[in-house]
Amino acid sequence: MHSALARRARRGGKAVKRQPAYPGPVKPVVGVLGGMGPMATVDFLTKLIARVPAGTDQEHLPLAIWSNPEIPNRTAALMGCGPSPVPALLDGVARLLDMGAETIAIPCNTAHAFLDQLREATGATFLDMIDATAAAAATAAAGDDHIGILSTRGTRAAGLYAAACLRRGLQPIEADQLDQELLVDVAIEYVKGGGHLDLAARLIETAVFRLVERGATVVIAGCTEIPIVSGRASASVQIIDATDCLAAAVVDAVWSR
Amino acid sequence: MHSALARRARRGGKAVKRQPAYPGPVKPVVGVLGGMGPMATVDFLTKLIARVPAGTDQEHLPLAIWSNPEIPNRTAALMGCGPSPVPALLDGVARLLDMGAETIAIPCNTAHAFLDQLREATGATFLDMIDATAAAAATAAAGDDHIGILSTRGTRAAGLYAAACLRRGLQPIEADQLDQELLVDVAIEYVKGGGHLDLAARLIETAVFRLVERGATVVIAGCTEIPIVSGRASASVQIIDATDCLAAAVVDAVWSR
Repeated sequence: MHSALARRARRGGKAVKRQPAYPGPVKPVVGVLGGMGPMATVDFLTKLIARVPAGTDQEHLPLAIWSNPEIPNRTAALMGCGPSPVPALLDGVARLLDMGAETIAIPCNTAHAFLDQLREATGATFLDMIDATAAAAATAAAGDDHIGILSTRGTRAAGLYAAACLRRGLQPIEADQLDQELLVDVAIEYVKGGGHLDLAARLIETAVFRLVERGATVVIAGCTEIPIVSGRASASVQIIDATDCLAAAVVDAVWSR
Repeated sequence: MHSALARRARRGGKAVKRQPAYPGPVKPVVGVLGGMGPMATVDFLTKLIARVPAGTDQEHLPLAIWSNPEIPNRTAALMGCGPSPVPALLDGVARLLDMGAETIAIPCNTAHAFLDQLREATGATFLDMIDATAAAAATAAAGDDHIGILSTRGTRAAGLYAAACLRRGLQPIEADQLDQELLVDVAIEYVKGGGHLDLAARLIETAVFRLVERGATVVIAGCTEIPIVSGRASASVQIIDATDCLAAAVVDAVWSR
């Protein structure tokens, strides 16, 4: 299985039988491994389209999107209380390579805990949402090194943002255990459920405020569900939207090619 | 080419090599042939997700989406001043069948002028946005049979909505030639270009008002770019959103399966 994936990746992901009359899009195909959750994928697509400097349909980027909401919960797996999402993620990567994807973006922060496994198993080219976001936070912090982080329990347990911040000499400040459970986790659940968005926004606003109290000058919205509501929050601190950072990374990677 | 597509369609579109550890999603995969334009596809996805009665990520529908903004302009082809989009559309259908799509939705009204060709060439199962929208208009009209139609010049030249309305005993009222050119076409171009959305909304509002003056009691927003701005218009008449009608048709077709 893995070697078939690797072969496909080496061919640049071009597995689709080309139509004689249509050789496929001219621009490179961006793959999106999504559905974690579905609205977060749509939020990412909206931000990606907004960032492409196109004036007509035809100038936009071709996208292959696999949105599989049935991928097992990433946080549950990382907390040791659910099945691994890796087989379902690899299945998605295979489908995207079949569709002709050359570069793959995963609009789910927590799924990045498995990024090394996906890279090793497939040899495909992935963009790194965590690294792109930490880079944007470093720029925004402009010398002050206290970066607040809001994420799922899984992202936090895997230490994704803490490690990315430390690699850039930034000091990560994560929500304390109680705020994680009572504010962040609940807000994420509300957004995933599609209801109570105003309440979720208030919870995130409170969580941001508590990080600011502890010295954060910039806060990373490091779960794709959070930027969906953090725009409604009236926080006075700069929020770094990880979803938008991934969109920017896609445009950087493929637009000029 | 066509027979390979037809074979794949007969297999239920299941061309992906399954991972031993992950047999693929349990729910049927909905294919979305999009990118015409990219924002219209995102608008469709947003409406589809909103219509799925799911409480968690895992309950949502798996989607395979091919968003190819390079597909030649449908209206230009129908007006005889551009290449046919059919080869690029068939290429998209092949990719979606490869991804495992069992039912395909096309969030582009004008592309439906080529639906019979796609059906014949591939044997795949497509949902019909035009028919679903005309059915919703008939219900909304509740006995009054004057249905206003806003669409691209291509949809209009192909007579898609006029024929669908007449089939249901409804009287279609299309924008006159000047309104089409000065209001509808310009508004659609603005939305596709991603700018001047407020101005586009005003143009559509005026076009709706002119149809109401001519007796329309219900107006079909029959181009995927129009509902993106018609929500901003303050029209007093009922607007039938073709994009949302397609989303409802998807849920009807696959949710209970």
